[in-house]
Amino acid sequence: MTIGVLGGGQLGRMLALAGYPLGLHFRFFDPSPQAPAGNLAEVISANYDDLKSLECFAAGLDLVTYEFENVPATSTHFLAKCVPIYPSPKALETAQDRLTEKTLFHRLGIPVPEFAPVNSSSDLEATLKQVGLPAVLKTRRLGYDGKGQFVLRQHDDAQHAWEAMGGFPLLLEGFIHFERELSILAVRGKNGEIRFYPLVENHHQDGILRHSLAPAPNLIPALQTQAEDYATRVLEALDYVGVLAIELFQCAGRLLANEMACRVHNSGHWTIEGAKTSQFENHLRAICGLPLGATAALGCSTMLNLIGTTPEPRQVLAIPEAHLHLYGKSARPGRKLGHVTVRADNQQTLEARLEQLGFLFSP
Amino acid sequence: MTIGVLGGGQLGRMLALAGYPLGLHFRFFDPSPQAPAGNLAEVISANYDDLKSLECFAAGLDLVTYEFENVPATSTHFLAKCVPIYPSPKALETAQDRLTEKTLFHRLGIPVPEFAPVNSSSDLEATLKQVGLPAVLKTRRLGYDGKGQFVLRQHDDAQHAWEAMGGFPLLLEGFIHFERELSILAVRGKNGEIRFYPLVENHHQDGILRHSLAPAPNLIPALQTQAEDYATRVLEALDYVGVLAIELFQCAGRLLANEMACRVHNSGHWTIEGAKTSQFENHLRAICGLPLGATAALGCSTMLNLIGTTPEPRQVLAIPEAHLHLYGKSARPGRKLGHVTVRADNQQTLEARLEQLGFLFSP
Repeated sequence: MTIGVLGGGQLGRMLALAGYPLGLHFRFFDPSPQAPAGNLAEVISANYDDLKSLECFAAGLDLVTYEFENVPATSTHFLAKCVPIYPSPKALETAQDRLTEKTLFHRLGIPVPEFAPVNSSSDLEATLKQVGLPAVLKTRRLGYDGKGQFVLRQHDDAQHAWEAMGGFPLLLEGFIHFERELSILAVRGKNGEIRFYPLVENHHQDGILRHSLAPAPNLIPALQTQAEDYATRVLEALDYVGVLAIELFQCAGRLLANEMACRVHNSGHWTIEGAKTSQFENHLRAICGLPLGATAALGCSTMLNLIGTTPEPRQVLAIPEAHLHLYGKSARPGRKLGHVTVRADNQQTLEARLEQLGFLFSP
Repeated sequence: MTIGVLGGGQLGRMLALAGYPLGLHFRFFDPSPQAPAGNLAEVISANYDDLKSLECFAAGLDLVTYEFENVPATSTHFLAKCVPIYPSPKALETAQDRLTEKTLFHRLGIPVPEFAPVNSSSDLEATLKQVGLPAVLKTRRLGYDGKGQFVLRQHDDAQHAWEAMGGFPLLLEGFIHFERELSILAVRGKNGEIRFYPLVENHHQDGILRHSLAPAPNLIPALQTQAEDYATRVLEALDYVGVLAIELFQCAGRLLANEMACRVHNSGHWTIEGAKTSQFENHLRAICGLPLGATAALGCSTMLNLIGTTPEPRQVLAIPEAHLHLYGKSARPGRKLGHVTVRADNQQTLEARLEQLGFLFSP
């Protein structure tokens, strides 16, 4: 079985590493000839809107999935005519636009921050009155890792934000004074079976995920149940197949949905060593119509992103149960170059090991 | 860092899968253009004694290792002139000849079955008197998976065995009425640090490893200590770097060494999911001079080889914590095509899961 993957970044690379043992073959599609998946499989290098190249890419594939979320809808629909795509182009499109995404959450009864579209400067004035300050002005499309966002704390900020982003379709959201950021990863098979990983606590820096604690500490069952309920609604509404990630705010004992990703997710990298089946393997099992794997955690883990620079491997590997994952990318400020997962049987041991990793946490 | 691997079979493939996350690159050397590692990295296809191709293979490599044990000594010595090889060609040569191997064990004070070289029909008569019946006549070289062995139960068998194998340098060994077969996997770093995996119980069928239980059930600490002591002696005597496997017979409460393999080993495949660091990652860490990873088991595991045919993946994956590993080889009777590892937190759960896998155990 040969799987085509739109995007050849680290997520694609880790999909391939999880898929080869299952006897799967891979072909990637990525604009960059240096895509990290390139060491592991054939990469077709072309722009995502190059239909001729997409046609070459699709030839002989059994199915297509993505590891990059901003593939143009025209391209996924074009591919869908000749090869099955999971998750569906509809799911991808929903997640590509923060307005349709938030509207779906709202329609499904999933709590979200107050939100309203902003299409003009006067819209912004009006919605600011409705939403109140502080608020967050976001581009509806192409935002990731904190890009395309502007926090409005005082009225003057609105003018600056409008000047910076006014050319794009925008969304204004109420600013949430959350206690912490969590994410739920769920996987749904072709037969409708759903499994959930335990909630993960995420810490960001400059808008980029810095580290995740898995399972989230002090996780009460009611919170897990709430998150699973939200995920189930989305998965079923979209007849979703594959791994879905929903980022959540914990706020006064309840969860608000922030955004979702129709793919394997950075906050699920810990599952490679820290769960009974990794998110990568479970995504592949789902889209191939295979039974899903167990999602329980094996002890507790912390996943730390390596951003901009990578440490000496020996420094990381000297720590018991520290696992290094390098993506084969050249260094550049703000770029995710790899991650480290530290696993332990219990929280106390984990914390002692993380102390040894302290050098990675300093900026 | 680019690592050259002599042999491109399933062991090489699993080395590459373990090594990519560490940022390593691979180049394989294998006579077959269909070598299983071929999906994952460049393979130079040529015979092992083709020095010109070995020279091309070596160009630009940081170091060389092997996943196939019968590489000619002239080839490894030729390579050693231009690139570091781990484990050393000397270790490989020792393991290639059952006589030098047994002689080393004996010299190091490691108990072995009685043994003597057989170079002629009259040698066989004489050594049979010394060793007694039953005995095992083996080729000194190129034996694996039970090939090149002949059990002599009565005196007449000697004549048949001599007719079948008399053209090769041979070894006669006392037949051991063992209680069970075990193996110890050890890894030694460049700095001399040694780590051991727990002893594994191995079950063979027609001379081929069928399944392994890890850790070996009813493992008393004294047995583990004995095995670790044997492995330490061999590792230090050979100034060994990498993973070493020693197959052992348990017999009246003590261990006898049967043979060793200077590479990652089939009886260590369970470590991918069942240990804190896999044998593949630890072999790479060792030969790259990186700190070794933790070798403790995570619960208990059974590894089952898929020989000759492979099951429907969905049948295997429906079992909780069953992990499927297919090697991408075409089916052929007696050929190792993949393996399944089932992990559980305890023996009772493991046994229940293995019952579900019963269909794989029937011939």
